Amino acid sequence: MWVIVVYDISDDEKRNKIARELQRLGLSRIQRSAFVGDIDSQRFKDLVRIMGKLVTGKDDILHIIPLGLRDWERRVVINGDSVRREAVSLL
Amino acid sequence: MWVIVVYDISDDEKRNKIARELQRLGLSRIQRSAFVGDIDSQRFKDLVRIMGKLVTGKDDILHIIPLGLRDWERRVVINGDSVRREAVSLL
Repeated sequence: MWVIVVYDISDDEKRNKIARELQRLGLSRIQRSAFVGDIDSQRFKDLVRIMGKLVTGKDDILHIIPLGLRDWERRVVINGDSVRREAVSLL
Repeated sequence: MWVIVVYDISDDEKRNKIARELQRLGLSRIQRSAFVGDIDSQRFKDLVRIMGKLVTGKDDILHIIPLGLRDWERRVVINGDSVRREAVSLL
């Protein structure tokens, strides 16, 4: 299953630890605090369990959202002054 | 169409302006730099156009990713020490 993981974590050390764990689980970084990847149901359980241990700050929040591969492929990425459209069919 | 918008913007003023525009377009904030919402194709075009004007910093990046409503409903939110699962069926 494809998922996107996005988070706001105030503690630098914990935020870096979360990024390392997400990489270890096979997800790819798409922004400073956002990862995407294809994981099986065992890895998904691991993901929820590990993140549950790391996201402990009062204002910390992390979302794990299932993502259809078709939806991911239709993303629009805006980077500096270049707009790369993978979503022409949407417009 | 449901979309999630996530961004890394270094300039405070631009980042705040992006958040205001996303709210104006009818999206809801789920984290400091992540919004979700249901928009029609005209609003989607506006979204891409407006964000293209605001995301101009060298290291700035913004993703607009279509999201199935079913997928959004199955999200897992980890908030401080509480894990709210809307995704039991996934596990």
